[in-house]
Amino acid sequence: MLLYVCVKGHFMVYSKRDKLTVMLKQYFKMVLQILKMSFCQVSPAAERLRYILSEDDDMPTPTLFTEMDTLQREGDELEWKESARWVKFEEKVEEGGERWSKPHVSTLSLHSLFELRTCLQTGTVLLDLEGYSLPQIVGEIQIEEGMTSPDLREKISFVLLRRHRHQTKKPIHRSLADIGKSSSSTSEYPCLCCVRSSRSRWTRTSSRSMNDIADTPSTDQLKNKFMKKIPRDAEASNVLVGEVDFLNKPFVAFVRLAQATTLGGLTEVPVPTRFLFILLGPQGRAKSYNEIGRAIATLMVDDLFSDVAYKARDREDLIAGIDEFLDEVIVLPPGEWDPKIRIEPPKKVTSADKRKSVFSLNELGQMNGTAGGAGGLTEDEEMPAQHELGEELAFTGRFCGGLYLDIKRKLPWIPSDFYEGFHIQSISAVLFIYLGCITNAITFGGLLGDATDNYQGVMESFLGTALAGSVFCLFSGQPLIILSSTGPILIFEKLLFEFSKNNSIDYMELRLWIGIHSCLQCFVLVATDASYIIKYMTRFTEEGFSSLISFIFISDAIKKMVGSFKYYPINTDFKPDYVTTYKCECLAPDPSEFTPWLRETEGNCPAEGSLNVTALDWSQLSKKECLKYGGSLVGKSCKFVPDLALMSFILFFGTYSMTVSLKKFKFSRYFPTKLRKLISDFSIFMSIMTFVGLDMLMGLKTPKLIVPTEFKPTRPDRGWLVMPFGKNPWWIYLASFVPALLVTILIFMDQQISAVIVNRKENKLKKGCGYHLDLFWVGVLMAACSFMGLPWYVAATVISIAHIDSLKMESESSAPGEQPQFLGVREQRVTGILVFALTGVSIFLAPVLKFIPMPVLYGVFLYMGVASLSGIQFWDRIKLYMMPSKHQPDYSYLRHVPLRRVHLFTLIQIMCLAVLWILKSTFLAIIFPVMILGLMVVRKMLDMVFSRHDLAWLDDLLPEKEKKKKDDDKKKGKGKEKEKKKSKADDSEEEVRNSIFCCPL
Amino acid sequence: MLLYVCVKGHFMVYSKRDKLTVMLKQYFKMVLQILKMSFCQVSPAAERLRYILSEDDDMPTPTLFTEMDTLQREGDELEWKESARWVKFEEKVEEGGERWSKPHVSTLSLHSLFELRTCLQTGTVLLDLEGYSLPQIVGEIQIEEGMTSPDLREKISFVLLRRHRHQTKKPIHRSLADIGKSSSSTSEYPCLCCVRSSRSRWTRTSSRSMNDIADTPSTDQLKNKFMKKIPRDAEASNVLVGEVDFLNKPFVAFVRLAQATTLGGLTEVPVPTRFLFILLGPQGRAKSYNEIGRAIATLMVDDLFSDVAYKARDREDLIAGIDEFLDEVIVLPPGEWDPKIRIEPPKKVTSADKRKSVFSLNELGQMNGTAGGAGGLTEDEEMPAQHELGEELAFTGRFCGGLYLDIKRKLPWIPSDFYEGFHIQSISAVLFIYLGCITNAITFGGLLGDATDNYQGVMESFLGTALAGSVFCLFSGQPLIILSSTGPILIFEKLLFEFSKNNSIDYMELRLWIGIHSCLQCFVLVATDASYIIKYMTRFTEEGFSSLISFIFISDAIKKMVGSFKYYPINTDFKPDYVTTYKCECLAPDPSEFTPWLRETEGNCPAEGSLNVTALDWSQLSKKECLKYGGSLVGKSCKFVPDLALMSFILFFGTYSMTVSLKKFKFSRYFPTKLRKLISDFSIFMSIMTFVGLDMLMGLKTPKLIVPTEFKPTRPDRGWLVMPFGKNPWWIYLASFVPALLVTILIFMDQQISAVIVNRKENKLKKGCGYHLDLFWVGVLMAACSFMGLPWYVAATVISIAHIDSLKMESESSAPGEQPQFLGVREQRVTGILVFALTGVSIFLAPVLKFIPMPVLYGVFLYMGVASLSGIQFWDRIKLYMMPSKHQPDYSYLRHVPLRRVHLFTLIQIMCLAVLWILKSTFLAIIFPVMILGLMVVRKMLDMVFSRHDLAWLDDLLPEKEKKKKDDDKKKGKGKEKEKKKSKADDSEEEVRNSIFCCPL
Repeated sequence: MLLYVCVKGHFMVYSKRDKLTVMLKQYFKMVLQILKMSFCQVSPAAERLRYILSEDDDMPTPTLFTEMDTLQREGDELEWKESARWVKFEEKVEEGGERWSKPHVSTLSLHSLFELRTCLQTGTVLLDLEGYSLPQIVGEIQIEEGMTSPDLREKISFVLLRRHRHQTKKPIHRSLADIGKSSSSTSEYPCLCCVRSSRSRWTRTSSRSMNDIADTPSTDQLKNKFMKKIPRDAEASNVLVGEVDFLNKPFVAFVRLAQATTLGGLTEVPVPTRFLFILLGPQGRAKSYNEIGRAIATLMVDDLFSDVAYKARDREDLIAGIDEFLDEVIVLPPGEWDPKIRIEPPKKVTSADKRKSVFSLNELGQMNGTAGGAGGLTEDEEMPAQHELGEELAFTGRFCGGLYLDIKRKLPWIPSDFYEGFHIQSISAVLFIYLGCITNAITFGGLLGDATDNYQGVMESFLGTALAGSVFCLFSGQPLIILSSTGPILIFEKLLFEFSKNNSIDYMELRLWIGIHSCLQCFVLVATDASYIIKYMTRFTEEGFSSLISFIFISDAIKKMVGSFKYYPINTDFKPDYVTTYKCECLAPDPSEFTPWLRETEGNCPAEGSLNVTALDWSQLSKKECLKYGGSLVGKSCKFVPDLALMSFILFFGTYSMTVSLKKFKFSRYFPTKLRKLISDFSIFMSIMTFVGLDMLMGLKTPKLIVPTEFKPTRPDRGWLVMPFGKNPWWIYLASFVPALLVTILIFMDQQISAVIVNRKENKLKKGCGYHLDLFWVGVLMAACSFMGLPWYVAATVISIAHIDSLKMESESSAPGEQPQFLGVREQRVTGILVFALTGVSIFLAPVLKFIPMPVLYGVFLYMGVASLSGIQFWDRIKLYMMPSKHQPDYSYLRHVPLRRVHLFTLIQIMCLAVLWILKSTFLAIIFPVMILGLMVVRKMLDMVFSRHDLAWLDDLLPEKEKKKKDDDKKKGKGKEKEKKKSKADDSEEEVRNSIFCCPL
Repeated sequence: MLLYVCVKGHFMVYSKRDKLTVMLKQYFKMVLQILKMSFCQVSPAAERLRYILSEDDDMPTPTLFTEMDTLQREGDELEWKESARWVKFEEKVEEGGERWSKPHVSTLSLHSLFELRTCLQTGTVLLDLEGYSLPQIVGEIQIEEGMTSPDLREKISFVLLRRHRHQTKKPIHRSLADIGKSSSSTSEYPCLCCVRSSRSRWTRTSSRSMNDIADTPSTDQLKNKFMKKIPRDAEASNVLVGEVDFLNKPFVAFVRLAQATTLGGLTEVPVPTRFLFILLGPQGRAKSYNEIGRAIATLMVDDLFSDVAYKARDREDLIAGIDEFLDEVIVLPPGEWDPKIRIEPPKKVTSADKRKSVFSLNELGQMNGTAGGAGGLTEDEEMPAQHELGEELAFTGRFCGGLYLDIKRKLPWIPSDFYEGFHIQSISAVLFIYLGCITNAITFGGLLGDATDNYQGVMESFLGTALAGSVFCLFSGQPLIILSSTGPILIFEKLLFEFSKNNSIDYMELRLWIGIHSCLQCFVLVATDASYIIKYMTRFTEEGFSSLISFIFISDAIKKMVGSFKYYPINTDFKPDYVTTYKCECLAPDPSEFTPWLRETEGNCPAEGSLNVTALDWSQLSKKECLKYGGSLVGKSCKFVPDLALMSFILFFGTYSMTVSLKKFKFSRYFPTKLRKLISDFSIFMSIMTFVGLDMLMGLKTPKLIVPTEFKPTRPDRGWLVMPFGKNPWWIYLASFVPALLVTILIFMDQQISAVIVNRKENKLKKGCGYHLDLFWVGVLMAACSFMGLPWYVAATVISIAHIDSLKMESESSAPGEQPQFLGVREQRVTGILVFALTGVSIFLAPVLKFIPMPVLYGVFLYMGVASLSGIQFWDRIKLYMMPSKHQPDYSYLRHVPLRRVHLFTLIQIMCLAVLWILKSTFLAIIFPVMILGLMVVRKMLDMVFSRHDLAWLDDLLPEKEKKKKDDDKKKGKGKEKEKKKSKADDSEEEVRNSIFCCPL
């Protein structure tokens, strides 16, 4: 008590010489604590906190919204003006700009924190005050303070009950109104500066307008849009700081109300106030008061301190809270940082729970040591997240055990799979994927038609895609997967057709039997839970596969584009001036016979017509007709087609680059977030529309999308049903088991790798997956398609990834400055079903679709390939080759694995890919799926080249090892588990961040 | 002393319960200080610092390079491993990654700072030790410490003299060597862990290898490339921390050597060591020791503390230094920031001088209050930098006073104007500007030729550009300005030619007289220092003018591009299949006469030839010939030119976007900085080469640059000299005074505004400018050009800005993490002279230049326009319209001026520009320069709409006001001046940053 008085006495000194007073305050604090230390051995602050925080952990404390108002003189009138607010981060009112600053991390000075500590030690602390209105609360404080002078009491009340002016969203409207108001009321209230001189006037006016604050929230408050940024259960803490001329020592009060109460216009938003911090001090130190106010406000939004504030039993608990805060504080050296820089909120902060857990775990000493963070030594010991595939791939050992579990798992989600699909985002997803699907259907349809002599053409491709896709989306385990024709299947069909043609075997029947066998083999795989071997597929294999598919997309798109330059050759020798020398004439096959007659007709009007059949008007024939009737084309312009190649290139490249730019637009500063998101979501659609429009505007005959308009098989001599018997010898039915095995492996690998990629942990899927169920349906569809003579379908990696990307959800960021979190994917069946329904209906959409030029679709293809590539870590690592190490991004694996090992790992991947690429380009493409198995073998061998530590960072550990590792961990005890979890969180967070920033899709 | 012992006794406790000990230490500190306070009233820390820092301010202290090594066990061997280093920012060794982290701000914990403080209070402090080798220094420390046990002494020496292993740049090479070494030497040194068990072995080995550290720097040290990042005068401070098993209390020593000494392999680089901090402690708290090490290392590179460390007289000075550091420290709340995040070095930090000045100015109390920064109230009162144009524009009042001063100012720089031009950057600048100049010369030459019936054509344009440009660059006051034909002059010439043609006045003679008059008028303006009125031109006017010019560039480029679609019409109805129907035939003028004969010939081989002159082979005629001989073109393909329009578009857009991308490449992560800078500098050249290459590859007849190859006037009936008399009546000679006046205003405005823009403060020009001298030479060239019948030349804003931008210098960043500073512009005459010499020589370069397609040059034009626009604040403000306020960048004016006022200001600017644009497009273009004067009037009127405060932030204040303001300031006293200076620095820094980031040029 003696010390208390001592400090109070020194307060005047402090207000002039703060350096001195900091010492004093610290002295005071230390003395008190040392006194206590003689009784207890543990640090008293932590001991206190542990006690109060563990008291009742079940009731979570509400979020606090903190508003700081400073006392200001507006004209002759005093008023409280909002100067900053905190939900989680600080937003300051830019005085000049009359606007809110961007949310930023509150940078405090150590000084202001120490001053605040003194304030709480010396000022009035009222906990659980039964307050219902501000005047009453002010009264209570003054009683507690023991303020005797009625004059002073009145003055303080007058100041504290001044009107509060908030920084609302509509400055023009409000400020105009204010101008009117303040000019009319200038003379109404006296200036506080002249209080001393005119004592009588003071009393008169003060009695008239003792309370400027309304009891009920104003309309401005209720209308404030900021409300939606504040959690529903939030309570407010109000910080009021100001300098007045009638005090000679600071008046400090910290009030916690028993019940959160709406104190009229005190707070910007209609949130009930729980805490009140008042600091009124003598004049001349406004800046210092302001800093103290910022300090308490920052403390109030600190997760740990707000807990303490809610549960504090007395003043000392609060002080202990500050001490704890100080202990965890991060310090920036003054020479390396300019305090004026506003620090943007970080992507992620240490969670409050982790900080609180310190107190329950009794690991005070250890945790304190780590506060410095960046320099820790043990962080290198941490291993990254384990490769977890969940129980979906567990080997049950029972017949159809996996399938049963899959169905059991997916069944409860069926209703939500439908109603969750109704969202604006679905529209863009459907459009995007639909375009991808029909492009794919047309491309593969065309290629299949070529390969199988039109036994399977574009029509079959459309029908098959629609049928297989919609059935799969309706019944599969993972409806986000999109089925499509894939390259390996195409190659298989091609080889099969050639084989059957050369050996006079009926292709369709042979194909049917292969389909049946393959279907049965799939069923065997499903029944035996064979999909569990997918567990041995690590990031290495996945990345190899999906990069390969991406490269195929990219190279196909570019090949198609280059092809159009061959298809529409440009006459590079064209001289505009010699336009007269360019022509192309159709000459009849035997000129000697027709020449005299030709001479006759040529001079005549071309519209003469009605010649006899043998004597054609050759000059009137089109190129095709001319060649058809055996004529020859003569002339400089015959081989050339003007403009189309270049126009195609413009359309192709334009679509691609516009899509990329629009995707990036999400991260620009222009337009509100929602509009930007919309533009980004619909970027592909918008690009397509733009370039279709441009194409229509130009009116050039660029190659257009051709959709079959009639519902009939492409080849007239086949029906919609293939008969299983009759055309081939009986042994073929059995022998087709062998090629079917190849198809089964192909389908199995293709399907399951795509499924693993879709089900990746980073996608945060909640409804689980169904590898066995998926494979079951792929098998069923295989047989069905074989019977109907339709192509076979399997999961398409790139389109499926695009599907997922277009359905990604992000949280609406709650507190200003907090990063929106990636929440997961809109898992539902609606988009898929719609896509395939549309594909089926496309036959009737031909009049609209025919306006889409093919180069635009190639552009979309290119984009899909590039976008799916950019989400892959492998691709990031390739880029590292070109970066000097000091410019490399701070990937977590770079912190832990030497660069040369990273490069070596990448190089091995590149080589594997190159080998796969070469194989794919030869006839060996048919054993392509086996090659993927080869990748897994290579990965296994990598265990010999790389340490487990390196592989854990660059890839994932293989399951056996994982098991061993787990055993090791168990031996080491549970202490590390927590750390691991944290690092996992770090890692996945980084993944998400990368995927947000790098992947433009 | 009692307390000292007390703390020492508690040290054991502290090593387990740090929280407790922090309190203790603080207690200790406070008690000491309070004891002192009874003697002096000022804070003792600050008092001490003020004393020692003011001691001898003349000798600057060297920069400190700090290296922290931690004791580590490599196999069985102990060694010191470099774990972090500081030049200004921290670079950490990534243990796993075996690499340096990116430089980052050291984030410390308050804890470690307090612990460090205790360490310095309790440990050995040896100042000005005469040390020559590490063993001797260690010995001295032990003597000072009063260490008696020889066993302990030996052990400590052994540990401290272990080999130091540094993180060098070549990890693979080194680590391989190390593996060999360590495996061979594994058994050589014993493990320290087993010291206790085998005492005898210890003594044996320790005597053998007591000192692992060589006396001379190793080759690794000398070869270290990092040396170039360290200032030449730097000294090292070495921090050694580690845990050992033989100590039961920490062994702490802080040593300052009397002379900086190279202590062998102690430091990574061969920099002599001045400071040594050693912390050896009992086992189990390595992390804590590490943090203490980081804390002292961070302190050592702090500008203020390193000064203190150099000048400290005793232990207390060091403690005072820490206290001062603590007082200035910036605190981040733990809940809002994750200590794991490495903070990137800021663009700018508070300068050390400012921090030091605190001590000399005796403003301790005040400055402390501002440490919190972001929340200050007074910052809004600050006004931005004043509009300063320097003494160059002062009104001397003497005849030719300004001109005399200009010459006097520029004369000493003449030699450096030449030798400073020889730099690699100049080559890219010359290429870039040369291409801009010839494009301009050709464009304007062509337009002038059209306008004046070839009295002035491309030839004259080339010659004039070369002549005027090189003369100006040789003799002018500001050789960075590039002269060129400009739009207003073109319009004037056009109107003048029409006038003289209609009134039968000789155009060339009239023009000569106008030139002479205008030249004389310029001389009058020079003699009377009239250029001083430029002072009234603020940012508003400058921006209006330069945006207008940029828009003209952009719109011209686009117009030209669109023009090529008209010039090469595309046949949009072309159907590839009907290629046979497209032809274009030349028909003779009177078909009826020739028809029978035509029929005859048409059937024959076209190569028949040798017809008589009257009977032309019409079908063999080219388009031009056909029309020339009166034939008519008939056919579907006559009006169309295939491919060229689209190819032109691809070239145009490709050049533009490739240049933009390459410019941005500077900020990418790929390739070393130097290569990136090279790519960025040569981006225009590379884009041009690429698209010229593409054009050659395609071989299409795109329009190419046509350079005159013969040195003769474009119009054969004029010579190279215009005679002043003889062709026009005498009164014309006098009357031409009136149009000359218009030309003079035009030239004056155009020239001087460009000069103001070039001489902007942001460009940090050092050699001064010469407005009067420039105008003088423009006048002289005016007359000269008139005599030779060449176009008139005046400063071209866009090309001049491009010239400056291509010559910008940036500092080679010294400390890792420090931003390269914009140093200024390579001010010299060489690039300009070369550009114009090349322009002159271009006539002979025709064989090379003829490969450049015009669309490529239009792309360059577009780029120039866009690039010069992007450096303008006005443009930034236009962009603000499209940004929701929360996404707007943190421009300083937005912090101080309400957004609606900013928008209003921008809107007024837009409207002014629109009016100017409309005027420019009509015949009123001739009074265009007067319109610029109009802008100044509008600006004057803005004083009535906007407050001075707002205008100071958005624009500059007009001189009269400025004067008044200065008077006001004087009254307010000098206190604010310092603040203003600081804010000015802020502002210009921001400008520079903006210009670096926004302006891709």
